[in-house]
Amino acid sequence: MHPSSLVPLITVTHAAGRYAVHTDPLADAPTHLREAGLAPGRALVVTDATVAALHLDTLMTALRADGWQPHAVVVAPGEASKSLAVFGDVVDACLSAGPDRGTPVLALGGGVVGDLGGFVAATLLRGLPLVQVPTTVLAQVDSSIGGKTGLNTARGKNLVGAFWAPRVVLADPAVLATLPEREVRSGLAEAVKHGLLAGGDLLATLHDEPAWENALARIVREAVVVKAAVVSADERESGARAFLNFGHTFGHALESAAGYGTLTHGEAVAVGMRAALHLSASLAAGRAPGAGPGQAVNVLPEPFAGMDALVARLAPPAIPDGVTDDALVAAMTLDKKRDASGLRFVVLD
Amino acid sequence: MHPSSLVPLITVTHAAGRYAVHTDPLADAPTHLREAGLAPGRALVVTDATVAALHLDTLMTALRADGWQPHAVVVAPGEASKSLAVFGDVVDACLSAGPDRGTPVLALGGGVVGDLGGFVAATLLRGLPLVQVPTTVLAQVDSSIGGKTGLNTARGKNLVGAFWAPRVVLADPAVLATLPEREVRSGLAEAVKHGLLAGGDLLATLHDEPAWENALARIVREAVVVKAAVVSADERESGARAFLNFGHTFGHALESAAGYGTLTHGEAVAVGMRAALHLSASLAAGRAPGAGPGQAVNVLPEPFAGMDALVARLAPPAIPDGVTDDALVAAMTLDKKRDASGLRFVVLD
Repeated sequence: MHPSSLVPLITVTHAAGRYAVHTDPLADAPTHLREAGLAPGRALVVTDATVAALHLDTLMTALRADGWQPHAVVVAPGEASKSLAVFGDVVDACLSAGPDRGTPVLALGGGVVGDLGGFVAATLLRGLPLVQVPTTVLAQVDSSIGGKTGLNTARGKNLVGAFWAPRVVLADPAVLATLPEREVRSGLAEAVKHGLLAGGDLLATLHDEPAWENALARIVREAVVVKAAVVSADERESGARAFLNFGHTFGHALESAAGYGTLTHGEAVAVGMRAALHLSASLAAGRAPGAGPGQAVNVLPEPFAGMDALVARLAPPAIPDGVTDDALVAAMTLDKKRDASGLRFVVLD
Repeated sequence: MHPSSLVPLITVTHAAGRYAVHTDPLADAPTHLREAGLAPGRALVVTDATVAALHLDTLMTALRADGWQPHAVVVAPGEASKSLAVFGDVVDACLSAGPDRGTPVLALGGGVVGDLGGFVAATLLRGLPLVQVPTTVLAQVDSSIGGKTGLNTARGKNLVGAFWAPRVVLADPAVLATLPEREVRSGLAEAVKHGLLAGGDLLATLHDEPAWENALARIVREAVVVKAAVVSADERESGARAFLNFGHTFGHALESAAGYGTLTHGEAVAVGMRAALHLSASLAAGRAPGAGPGQAVNVLPEPFAGMDALVARLAPPAIPDGVTDDALVAAMTLDKKRDASGLRFVVLD
């Protein structure tokens, strides 16, 4: 067990800031806010209607008990809330609470709320303290850590945003019990990605646990440690962090080409990881003595086959009918991680 | 004379970056882009219709001649373009040009374009290189230097924004010849403010020159040096930079309460500086031996009278009919520089 305490699970350090990740009960939030240097006063809580129904009272009650005056802003659940229009509504609602430059923004929810609330914190009054309170597997193991915030535009995901580090991340694994199964599986895709990239305890746990949903708290904590270590090594994707895009160039394109909301992010990433594993195996075969360059492989050799089997436990969906190769290539061409030299795929060797 | 050369007028250094300010001809822009580490490729030029008619061809031609593929995005002139709606349109137009993370955004125009284009650069693809190309006195001596970007909301000015330093500032004094007189006077208000705060060459020039409009290039260069020195000392308004808000707490409130567009920013700041000088004199009188606290003064003593005479040369307008004290206080209460301890006024002693 990981007792509720002032000792964080891990501390993240990157160019935009240094912050602790705690995996304590949500009701302990005020303790960790004080510890992060945030003194009670006004606070803004950005969340969505689904999460609000389950967890908002717990957080608001805890904040009020410690002397905070929290003001909640509730958006509709789903990717559509990562729009400039909803951002404008949230900004107006936040301003109506009379924030000053010391007022923290708490993003209570999944990846969408974390990206939206994070971008609000990055830009309201030119920057307010941000507290990430992730409530999904995806947000706890991945999106709440590393300082990325963003909105979608008609042309693609996260095309507007900012790097803005939280002051502290409060990830209570107990809240994951309320998640629907598809949401859990989607988040586990990122945990599997972390395991494939980092190996170690997390990969062993993923291999050993027959039912991941019964070991969520452990998987989450081990995956948080991997993510924190990678972004601490490199915040801006020039080096180590680029590996976190494993499965994502194809995954993002698939998510976009299928129409946002058709596949979850994790489902698209799972399909993307399988594609990346095949690409990795092809490139490895191309490097073998006597092989031609980049030849395709039909049967995956080890270690790629074992990795692929792990990804397969996520039950990745088929590519939806109507998603053409051309649409995928067009979507990838807009990937913001593209630079003048072309697209980048992360492969394993 | 200040010859066109690789030697900048001054180099600004603050937390968000380090960049040169050049006061060379606009057509020399490509030289300074290279020097700032920006290699020819795609470029985004954000400007407004008024500036586009006068100066866009010069910049686009110079860029193309050096191997750039510039894409111009032209907004309507005026404060209304600093809105979230126009921001969204500009983002879409920029994305249609297929930028990657190395694509610079050049903000060619006055304060509105600098703030809007700067916020686009700060947030598009989570941050692109920014080049400020200020074309008004206000933008050259003040808003293009220091890394502030922002949009207005219905609740006030610059309530959404980011600190995002330019890679280089290209301020050609020759373009100021095309400005209407009211625009020049508005910008000179910030130069007068810099002079009152810093003294030195700039204050001497302002005192000695009988017709400021005939000495614009010199005043601009001396004011740029003051602004650069202040923001280099302190980027985030906690210390030295806070003095740049002289006249601005009242000025911003007046601008807002009168309805944006009624007074220029410089006109409102000029009125605000006179108010701040009276407040300064009252506080100074309150500190005199035997005086009561903060007593009002009817006749300004020196040095405040001399300062007030300098501000008076800007011909500050009267406070418009219908702007009530209550409206001004309400607008000041939303000032984003307010903190939990209350409003802050900058006074001189």
